[in-house]
Amino acid sequence: MIYLDNAATTPIDDCISEAMAAFLKQNFGNPQSQHWAGRAAANAVVSARDKTAHILGCKPEEVYFTSGGTEAGNAALKGVCAAHGKGSIIISATEHPALIESAEDMRKFGVEVIYVNPDNRGIVSPQTVENAVKDDTFFCAVMYANNETGVIQPVKEIGEICRARNIFYYCDCVQTAGVLPFPTQYCDGIGISSHKFYGPRGFGAMYIKNGSKINRFISGGMQERGFRGGTLNAAAAVGLAMALENAENNRENNNAKIKALRDEFVKRVLQEVKGCVLNGDKTLRVPSNANISFEGCDGANILFLLDLEGIAVSTGSACSAGAVTPSHVLTAMGLSAERAKGAVRFTFGKYNTIEEVEFTIGAVKRAVAKIRNNKK
Amino acid sequence: MIYLDNAATTPIDDCISEAMAAFLKQNFGNPQSQHWAGRAAANAVVSARDKTAHILGCKPEEVYFTSGGTEAGNAALKGVCAAHGKGSIIISATEHPALIESAEDMRKFGVEVIYVNPDNRGIVSPQTVENAVKDDTFFCAVMYANNETGVIQPVKEIGEICRARNIFYYCDCVQTAGVLPFPTQYCDGIGISSHKFYGPRGFGAMYIKNGSKINRFISGGMQERGFRGGTLNAAAAVGLAMALENAENNRENNNAKIKALRDEFVKRVLQEVKGCVLNGDKTLRVPSNANISFEGCDGANILFLLDLEGIAVSTGSACSAGAVTPSHVLTAMGLSAERAKGAVRFTFGKYNTIEEVEFTIGAVKRAVAKIRNNKK
Repeated sequence: MIYLDNAATTPIDDCISEAMAAFLKQNFGNPQSQHWAGRAAANAVVSARDKTAHILGCKPEEVYFTSGGTEAGNAALKGVCAAHGKGSIIISATEHPALIESAEDMRKFGVEVIYVNPDNRGIVSPQTVENAVKDDTFFCAVMYANNETGVIQPVKEIGEICRARNIFYYCDCVQTAGVLPFPTQYCDGIGISSHKFYGPRGFGAMYIKNGSKINRFISGGMQERGFRGGTLNAAAAVGLAMALENAENNRENNNAKIKALRDEFVKRVLQEVKGCVLNGDKTLRVPSNANISFEGCDGANILFLLDLEGIAVSTGSACSAGAVTPSHVLTAMGLSAERAKGAVRFTFGKYNTIEEVEFTIGAVKRAVAKIRNNKK
Repeated sequence: MIYLDNAATTPIDDCISEAMAAFLKQNFGNPQSQHWAGRAAANAVVSARDKTAHILGCKPEEVYFTSGGTEAGNAALKGVCAAHGKGSIIISATEHPALIESAEDMRKFGVEVIYVNPDNRGIVSPQTVENAVKDDTFFCAVMYANNETGVIQPVKEIGEICRARNIFYYCDCVQTAGVLPFPTQYCDGIGISSHKFYGPRGFGAMYIKNGSKINRFISGGMQERGFRGGTLNAAAAVGLAMALENAENNRENNNAKIKALRDEFVKRVLQEVKGCVLNGDKTLRVPSNANISFEGCDGANILFLLDLEGIAVSTGSACSAGAVTPSHVLTAMGLSAERAKGAVRFTFGKYNTIEEVEFTIGAVKRAVAKIRNNKK
């Protein structure tokens, strides 16, 4: 079996699940409890928070553990909206559904949602953001790297525009954690999800800059200094911090290896399969992503035929799976509905091999030929 | 070490973590993905949802997986408020902070929050709820069993009052899952948290009756039929369903064993320690809970001295730990601030033994004597 859907999720590393095991069974206490069982868990959480903050480049008290990247996006957008009331927010048209759907939910509370489009390379220019700013704009979300195309956004410049205008800038870093250095200094909020970097599922973290005007989202007890209720998953906090540390420590090696696989794959497919094109900027993209449209093909059919050969890929993102409309990301880039429908996302990870790439190239050729033949 | 804080959290059972392991590593796919890796995870989630629905007594599509009981409470209360707009909601004064703090958050959106008080046994009477209903009341939250006192509420009668008036009735069942049969037929919403019944941390489920007027809370992709975004934690869903099934299958045996330990503990402490009293109704309580106030003592000091002897107990709930005010639950019951401050919660679980109870009785006597002597 060949897994080329690493942007959807990654398998947990053995060292991570082993480190977590101690906090499932022996040190199982509620970190909030004031006794031996709670203290062991609480100490582990302190250490996990310190590590995470160190890698993010922020203070430990600016790190909040969440149930994942989607909760982080909801918490930031809805929390800032709740604190500001009416006004306008700027959202990149290629954001993850966590941000787009959260923004849509805010309309009924009197918030105006302004979408900014990328160019045909998938890049949202700082100028486009600046042009969209209104006097009452208080929030902006432009992700670091897109989950469908892997295209990297100019977050430094967008962050500077926002900071100069006192706009809360949220940068979804779910696809770049452990891949690119965190742009924390330019942001007011960041979200990450640990299962994207070989850590535990159902867990993530968010950075919220101290002093930000934001309300809590999940209300409850005194956990996370009252900002996020619910019994903290100490095991997952340990796992997230360790997985992030491992990813950071091996970042250059992993990136180089993954980029070599991806580049070979893209080069060969574009050479050997007629009528196909890489979507998104050719160089400003994370090393793992190849989003390719195949003329005259439906991406879903390619996915199906590759799956029969044991190869896991996706069309669009897993979060949008089940949707019948073409990718909102590719459509926002101005690509035709036909090209968007013909897109397949291949995302490589640290466990892939050149043999897998070779086999997949052959399988893609077989799949595309079969689909095109059937149409004749 | 003696763990008597089972209402705060429970250790995960080995059979649960073993069943989950397969979905951490081999079947690690994103359940939303349309390929082999996703399908294995998706199938497991379908089975987990079916099992959970069967035990809850509802349809599988009425079960939504969440990050825990606190998220469920937020999602129900805030989701129903978002769908209704202005109007009033009724909250028991002894609810978990997840409900109380969520209700407080809704005030700024024009929602009126009406608290209903329990009697001095900790019971919120149906009549009190009925008297609080206004023409514009659209939501009511009264939990099944209180997390601090274990007192069981008349949810059937409260549910009937709400249903007759088209009020959404949310019943927090975090403390009763696997202990009492679910009151699903009388409720529109229910929340449970799997780490309270020897399942995984950071995960839970909620029942929302089909056709309820409620908006989604965590927005994002198409997961949970678009009602709850975020990559589903398939391993945790498997773990929750299995833990719930185990708890249900062994309910009577576990309850009988735990009740015998708790009853022996309460009888002996009330006999052998002067100036102490059981808080909450003597019989209408879950079998695990003993909430006892010790005259002339600060509960926090007893907790500290018991911890030195390796015994884990709590004052109030773990979620309120760090709060300096006396328990809002005991205060709402009309107990004096002194009695509330002198309270200690002992919660027994299926792994406790009569030897642990014996040792703890001795330790409580030593602790109380020491504190009272120091005061002289």
